[in-house]
Amino acid sequence: MLYTELNSKINYDRKNLRWDAWGASDQDFFLKNYISDIIQLIKDEWGVSYLPDTPGIDWKDIQIKSPRFTAEQTKSLIKIVGEDRFLTDNYERIFHSVGRSYYDVMRLRFNQLKEFTDGVIYPGSNVEVSNILKFCRDKNIAVVPFGGGSSVVGGVEALKLKTQKAILTIDLSKMNSLIDIDEMSCTATFQAGIYGPQLEKILSEKGYTLGHFPQSFEYSTLGGWIAARSSGQQSGKYGKIEKILVSLRMVTPEGDLVTPRLPPYSMGPDMNQIIAGSEGLLGVITEVTVKIHPTPPARKYFAFVFPEFSNGVNFIRTANREGLRMSMMRLSDEDETFLFSHFGSLGKPDTIFRKFKNGLKEKVLSWNGIFERRCALIGGIDSNPMQIGRTLDLAKKIAGQNKGFFGGTSPGKNWLKSRYNMPFLRNHFMERGIGVDTLETSITYDRLLKLHEDVTVAIRKVFPVCNTMCHVSHSYPEGASLYFTIIFPMNVKDPVSQWKSMKSAASEAILKVGGSISHHHGVGVDHKDWYQRIMGEKSIEGLTAIKKTWDKKGILNPGKLFS
Amino acid sequence: MLYTELNSKINYDRKNLRWDAWGASDQDFFLKNYISDIIQLIKDEWGVSYLPDTPGIDWKDIQIKSPRFTAEQTKSLIKIVGEDRFLTDNYERIFHSVGRSYYDVMRLRFNQLKEFTDGVIYPGSNVEVSNILKFCRDKNIAVVPFGGGSSVVGGVEALKLKTQKAILTIDLSKMNSLIDIDEMSCTATFQAGIYGPQLEKILSEKGYTLGHFPQSFEYSTLGGWIAARSSGQQSGKYGKIEKILVSLRMVTPEGDLVTPRLPPYSMGPDMNQIIAGSEGLLGVITEVTVKIHPTPPARKYFAFVFPEFSNGVNFIRTANREGLRMSMMRLSDEDETFLFSHFGSLGKPDTIFRKFKNGLKEKVLSWNGIFERRCALIGGIDSNPMQIGRTLDLAKKIAGQNKGFFGGTSPGKNWLKSRYNMPFLRNHFMERGIGVDTLETSITYDRLLKLHEDVTVAIRKVFPVCNTMCHVSHSYPEGASLYFTIIFPMNVKDPVSQWKSMKSAASEAILKVGGSISHHHGVGVDHKDWYQRIMGEKSIEGLTAIKKTWDKKGILNPGKLFS
Repeated sequence: MLYTELNSKINYDRKNLRWDAWGASDQDFFLKNYISDIIQLIKDEWGVSYLPDTPGIDWKDIQIKSPRFTAEQTKSLIKIVGEDRFLTDNYERIFHSVGRSYYDVMRLRFNQLKEFTDGVIYPGSNVEVSNILKFCRDKNIAVVPFGGGSSVVGGVEALKLKTQKAILTIDLSKMNSLIDIDEMSCTATFQAGIYGPQLEKILSEKGYTLGHFPQSFEYSTLGGWIAARSSGQQSGKYGKIEKILVSLRMVTPEGDLVTPRLPPYSMGPDMNQIIAGSEGLLGVITEVTVKIHPTPPARKYFAFVFPEFSNGVNFIRTANREGLRMSMMRLSDEDETFLFSHFGSLGKPDTIFRKFKNGLKEKVLSWNGIFERRCALIGGIDSNPMQIGRTLDLAKKIAGQNKGFFGGTSPGKNWLKSRYNMPFLRNHFMERGIGVDTLETSITYDRLLKLHEDVTVAIRKVFPVCNTMCHVSHSYPEGASLYFTIIFPMNVKDPVSQWKSMKSAASEAILKVGGSISHHHGVGVDHKDWYQRIMGEKSIEGLTAIKKTWDKKGILNPGKLFS
Repeated sequence: MLYTELNSKINYDRKNLRWDAWGASDQDFFLKNYISDIIQLIKDEWGVSYLPDTPGIDWKDIQIKSPRFTAEQTKSLIKIVGEDRFLTDNYERIFHSVGRSYYDVMRLRFNQLKEFTDGVIYPGSNVEVSNILKFCRDKNIAVVPFGGGSSVVGGVEALKLKTQKAILTIDLSKMNSLIDIDEMSCTATFQAGIYGPQLEKILSEKGYTLGHFPQSFEYSTLGGWIAARSSGQQSGKYGKIEKILVSLRMVTPEGDLVTPRLPPYSMGPDMNQIIAGSEGLLGVITEVTVKIHPTPPARKYFAFVFPEFSNGVNFIRTANREGLRMSMMRLSDEDETFLFSHFGSLGKPDTIFRKFKNGLKEKVLSWNGIFERRCALIGGIDSNPMQIGRTLDLAKKIAGQNKGFFGGTSPGKNWLKSRYNMPFLRNHFMERGIGVDTLETSITYDRLLKLHEDVTVAIRKVFPVCNTMCHVSHSYPEGASLYFTIIFPMNVKDPVSQWKSMKSAASEAILKVGGSISHHHGVGVDHKDWYQRIMGEKSIEGLTAIKKTWDKKGILNPGKLFS
């Protein structure tokens, strides 16, 4: 049931996917007809009358040097996978040289990317991956494992050590089959290169779901989720991907590592949890066994409105502590609530009835102490109707204790419709001189409000004119994640330095309060320095030692995380 | 509330704790007055009329060489902790040289232990632990971290490499303070040497519980739980200890590793999950932050009876899949059910009323297809009364679908009373020529019944006369753990070889079906070979590399796990 609403018809042909923006070229922002209204709103907010047009460039205009493989090497790589699976044309190379963060696509659009991958190889089996890695080890070629390429932290950026001869990107997307389902144990084993919609389609046809729906769902893969410790929007029910993971195969240049398909056990350090989050530095994840769930018979998504962010946070904290079975609790701060409520009004005719209805709504809210500056929480429950009813009743009770007001199911339905769509808005913004970036962190509740405040202040110091907004995206009994969105006027003269200043200011603020540098995007290149400072010398030394064992020559994804 | 029933008055003075048996010397088996009845039952079962007495020996009769520390070294160690915290008397050394498995205490009682620790040091701070480790590194002295010493897999056994000069046991039990509670985030930070009852007492006075109640609860410590990936009896609600863990400090000879106190994050491989299960090989865990829970307002423990083990397993599997909120589901197989039901009848007068009641009970059960050979499941729910009612209703429904019959709350109450007490029965058995050992494993549901069958058969091949019994102790949506108990006539001439044959046969059977070599006891010395075969070369190489980084000289707990 859940799957049928998903977009299963995406054409993943690389030429059909945008190389300098989000998503497939035949997909767009659901409010695309109102882009000029939205931009006008932003201009009004900023008090500016002019923003420069910033059109993209043709990929053919990008300066790109010839691949650095020797003829001999090219021949060998073709021998491993076949001629049609080793590509060195410029589109493939550009498409695979960065992920899809603002920083990535901005550099492409401003023709500021310095390094490109030299070629892209599409293995079809574990043995092919193994042969590629051994070949690259022997020839001193850097290797970038690539799933959907949706990384927003530089996780798939084409980088190499100075001593390395070339860069080869291993695109796993041809390894996308179901290997086995064990319905008795509710586990399924897939090849790791399978995209989200492909995986859910297979499972839904058998009555199951993985339940992992990150915003990148349509453009990311199972292996990528695990490599980056991804988190889905319904993680309240299904857990982060590292909890969904049962076992895996990772191919390294020195041989395969296979963890046993088992429920929890006490057999030393958890190898799964070393490989989850290893971001391609330790090996290439090629097969994964995951927990699956019978498709929930029903679901209900709805909203609560709170007078202040702190009320909403307290609702989330209490709901977690009391074990409320919500699949999702997504609390927008005042600024994000304002923007989304504006989006909600777009395209709706300003009839007298609507005016009256809205006026009434505002009246009722104001009687309840909720005024124009307020916070909306989208909640979701995926279960059977009885459990949904009980959970919602309890949620209403806890919301009431925190000055919350039930906002009905329309906002929930709207959210479900556009859940994977927001990144497409950035495509339009970036054509019109508007930068938009996101960053996220997690922290225990005792420091959460301070983190929200301090990061916001830090960003606004860098951008005197901007919009910052935030939502609590995932939550736990001990704390939650904060997801920030920053909309700012692009400095077209030096967009790279502009972004770096913002990234640094926000990250320093996070570090100072004690948050994580990422809850689910990962570390990659962009968070590397702060990650290493948080984890400390001993951790980095230990991880480096493992890497040296499995990747003796250091060919795997250099320049990221702890490499 | 939960805590008040616990035994908070244990005197942990080492001289008050048994050195060659389970527990404190003033604690005993709750049916100690019926030991001869129990032994008679076993004799009848085995068809033997005679079993040899096997009394223990005086610890003063144990041959033990002088400590191998030089006078200079002794002086230095005393300088670190003070004179009263570094002990080399024979009782301390014998007490700390093994854990409390059958194999451990059997060797002590038969005076067959070859190696002893040379001394025991009781640090009081992180700095002291660090200084001890650095000293031992420089002097090439093997170090055994020791929590409660309740290991049943050889995890604290005094072993050293041939090249090492001596063995020093670090007893953490003086580091047992609460460091901090964060009630808003529901986390608490303790020094790692705190015993279970000490920790629960502190928390319960503030209205919280950790919820971690392994059978060893009274004689094990927080740090030990994490080092061994322990699991509590209520793990259905609270999770295994590695899920309860939020962050920690581990002192290594090369410096401290501290993980951040945070909810889940995406920052590379999970360092917590490398240290959990590291069994003292990577460092000494000295401080731990854990999730805590408001004490549940109520609880209900009860029984279901199933005609066959497979029906009970199917109940557990379905309950997990449907997200039934049970704290515990403990399903005994036919043989274990028989023994426990016999225990239940001990000491109860054989009145006409009782005979009538039991007769009636049997009648009702037989009408429901449940005969003398049957399986009992003890279930527990810790929650509020409403939730308990709903969960129990649903449990009854699922049980009914699996031919189960509700057995009332008396068995649950009885189980709660004796939940930590069963190991004391072994103390008596071992005086009377009866060996008793336990072993446990975990596996996905598709292979669970085969594992149960094959391990039972393998053990019975080694012991033509014996009792084997088993229960499902912990369960998950994808699988469960099986906990075996083996009661056998001791071979008093060569009890060591006898035990090794059994261990090997059972472990090979587990490996063949594909189970884990331990779900919650750990690896230690006893499971080392099978662990390494399950995890494979690549995993062991990686872990060895980390160890070499944090423990360059290999002084930490040699001879166990992967060292």
